[in-house]
Amino acid sequence: MNLTVDGDRLRDDIEATAAFGDIDAGEGRGRTVLVGTEANRRAREYLVDRMEAVGLDVTVDAVGNVAGTWIPDGADPEAAPVAAGSHLDSVPEGGIFDGPLGVYAALESVRAMQEADATPDRPVVVVCFTEEEGQRFADGLLGSSVAVGERTVEEALALTDDDGVTLEAALEDIGFRGEGRLDASEWGAFYELHIEQDTTLEEAGVPVGVVTTITGITHLDVEILGEANHAGATHMRDRTDALAAAAELVLDVEAAANDVVEVSSDSAVGTVGSLSVSPNATNVVPGHVEAGVDIRDVEYDSMETVVGAVRDTLARIEDERGVDTELARPFDLRPTPMAERLREATHRAGDGAGIDTLDLHSGAAHDTMYVADVTDASLLFAPSREGISHNPREWTDWDDCAAATRVLAGAIADVAGAE
Amino acid sequence: MNLTVDGDRLRDDIEATAAFGDIDAGEGRGRTVLVGTEANRRAREYLVDRMEAVGLDVTVDAVGNVAGTWIPDGADPEAAPVAAGSHLDSVPEGGIFDGPLGVYAALESVRAMQEADATPDRPVVVVCFTEEEGQRFADGLLGSSVAVGERTVEEALALTDDDGVTLEAALEDIGFRGEGRLDASEWGAFYELHIEQDTTLEEAGVPVGVVTTITGITHLDVEILGEANHAGATHMRDRTDALAAAAELVLDVEAAANDVVEVSSDSAVGTVGSLSVSPNATNVVPGHVEAGVDIRDVEYDSMETVVGAVRDTLARIEDERGVDTELARPFDLRPTPMAERLREATHRAGDGAGIDTLDLHSGAAHDTMYVADVTDASLLFAPSREGISHNPREWTDWDDCAAATRVLAGAIADVAGAE
Repeated sequence: MNLTVDGDRLRDDIEATAAFGDIDAGEGRGRTVLVGTEANRRAREYLVDRMEAVGLDVTVDAVGNVAGTWIPDGADPEAAPVAAGSHLDSVPEGGIFDGPLGVYAALESVRAMQEADATPDRPVVVVCFTEEEGQRFADGLLGSSVAVGERTVEEALALTDDDGVTLEAALEDIGFRGEGRLDASEWGAFYELHIEQDTTLEEAGVPVGVVTTITGITHLDVEILGEANHAGATHMRDRTDALAAAAELVLDVEAAANDVVEVSSDSAVGTVGSLSVSPNATNVVPGHVEAGVDIRDVEYDSMETVVGAVRDTLARIEDERGVDTELARPFDLRPTPMAERLREATHRAGDGAGIDTLDLHSGAAHDTMYVADVTDASLLFAPSREGISHNPREWTDWDDCAAATRVLAGAIADVAGAE
Repeated sequence: MNLTVDGDRLRDDIEATAAFGDIDAGEGRGRTVLVGTEANRRAREYLVDRMEAVGLDVTVDAVGNVAGTWIPDGADPEAAPVAAGSHLDSVPEGGIFDGPLGVYAALESVRAMQEADATPDRPVVVVCFTEEEGQRFADGLLGSSVAVGERTVEEALALTDDDGVTLEAALEDIGFRGEGRLDASEWGAFYELHIEQDTTLEEAGVPVGVVTTITGITHLDVEILGEANHAGATHMRDRTDALAAAAELVLDVEAAANDVVEVSSDSAVGTVGSLSVSPNATNVVPGHVEAGVDIRDVEYDSMETVVGAVRDTLARIEDERGVDTELARPFDLRPTPMAERLREATHRAGDGAGIDTLDLHSGAAHDTMYVADVTDASLLFAPSREGISHNPREWTDWDDCAAATRVLAGAIADVAGAE
């Protein structure tokens, strides 16, 4: 069904949210909204107000996940609902779209259906997950990990920030330590609209991306042990330089990912994002390096190809340079395909509204990745100017926000059986 | 003249000094003696006692440099003296020979001349410089830099440690903030015996090295600016990865130094010793890297060759990778040749004592490097087991300490005109 959304109302909600934890950014518009802070409380309370203003039944679970349920007239209240949402927390000095767009696009979708007198045959739930960014507690995707049973409520509440404050205390502090557990497995479907954080849509001039697959993610921790030595007194031939060995790794990871891109899978990426050198003094030959490698693709096989290249490099630098190496794989998630019936509903909604949609993959993890473990899930993207995110310069044109929300609303209405 | 030194007495002095600031090292024998600490006070007081025990006239200058002057019977007290010494401070958890060997070898040389009734025609001065290691104040070679006028007394005294304590306060605290300025330009010659910190002597089986040249040192600070971006959402082709660019620099510095070694100068070294990555998170493409490059050789031209390679690399990565780069050269010292007449006196002393000597260069900076700016100076080396230094595993056999001291004593006596 073809719904009209109110772009100004959507913008008002996003801009109101942008004011909580806003920072004085030289360029752009930034905010810092860590979980359990005053800014987070205000952002959450504003959401609850906006939900209640249109008659949603709001619940807050034990880890602070917020759900606002609309039971349309004539709908079966026991039918598996269609849920949609995202998050309100941000990285430090982050942007104003990453998260809030998805939450308020979901709420605007409900408002649009209400105003169009649409009659879904099942409830629609607007969702805000806790601690998607992982900036204060855990590594990210915290609320959704609890909602799918990947982590228990108790484990989550016991997590501490750098000052030893528990998530439980932080949520109690802002009045959002609720009861029970939001259970995503009860949903019939889940939609998340998020900014793309890359330039595919911008370059294509298309306002809505339909994610086919969220890439898998492997993190490798590499340790390289050479021999720290005097940079002046140690002949070139007598060195076991851990940093020179690590430099080979950095370039080999890049080359291996580029090879996969060229040969088999355009979406493959490989990154050495972190590198710590010891003793890290200009006049000392480095004796020890720790490197963090991030490898992603929509195909697990091509991720394994890059992992294999890392293993080959480590064997070679041990052999040729005499370093010792250690390899650990602390994090390994396989690619997550999105539900085809939800993707099709999205394309239909775009067609119905005369708005272009484009299939693409997501290289970033989102709450949808966890939700897809327990029910049909779908991730939509809106364009990001220059692909910038986690930065006050993050920007999505308001027209694109509205267009993507219109497609989201149409898809939700379709999947929820609205006439 | 051929003198006999007392190896046991020398050893007693080094071992007594090793007890001040001694640490519980699992392997080897370590000490931590930072300037102005209790350990430093005790090491200095022990030295003053040992100097006074054999009749030296001890002075302490404003920056804590200690000088003990012996005016032999019949010598011209106004003649330019022959000075010799080193330092007593250490790096944290350093070894027991780096510094103390040179101070007590100089004192033992005086004792040996006294006992042999040698009659130098000029004074002999035993010297201990303040803060050679640069671990608490400044960058090292502090006392010698003041003694040659490279830095004023006032500048030195105003230096602060990480807690804001001035050198002046630290020296007053231990009773070694003296008066005036030790003036190295008044010396006719200066000798320093130091451990080699490399394996040339050990491999050659020779107990005494005669340094021909202290290498020049250039430090380059390189900044590489790429674009920090999401490691998952940013296609390989859309990246400007500052770390990958820096990895090219690391390998190019190594290759350029190896080329110089192969083609023209075996002593050339090039090191990227420090590398700091920002934001340094596994899942973020690095946006910013700072690298510290150390380049040394006995020929300034070959140092320039490696510097040129760095410039070429920076131009290439700007061109090929789109990074921006900045290059600064905060430190640049040309190679320092040692005085030929002092080297010849050392070889004669070795020949006279039947102790082998070997010409080599020093890749490490020492106080002698500064002293050579204002008078004839010479650096001798004793073997370092496995080249290890700045470490409790630092070791020089006591026999080698005695042999090197015997050659030092002979050279000092020769240059001081002893019969």
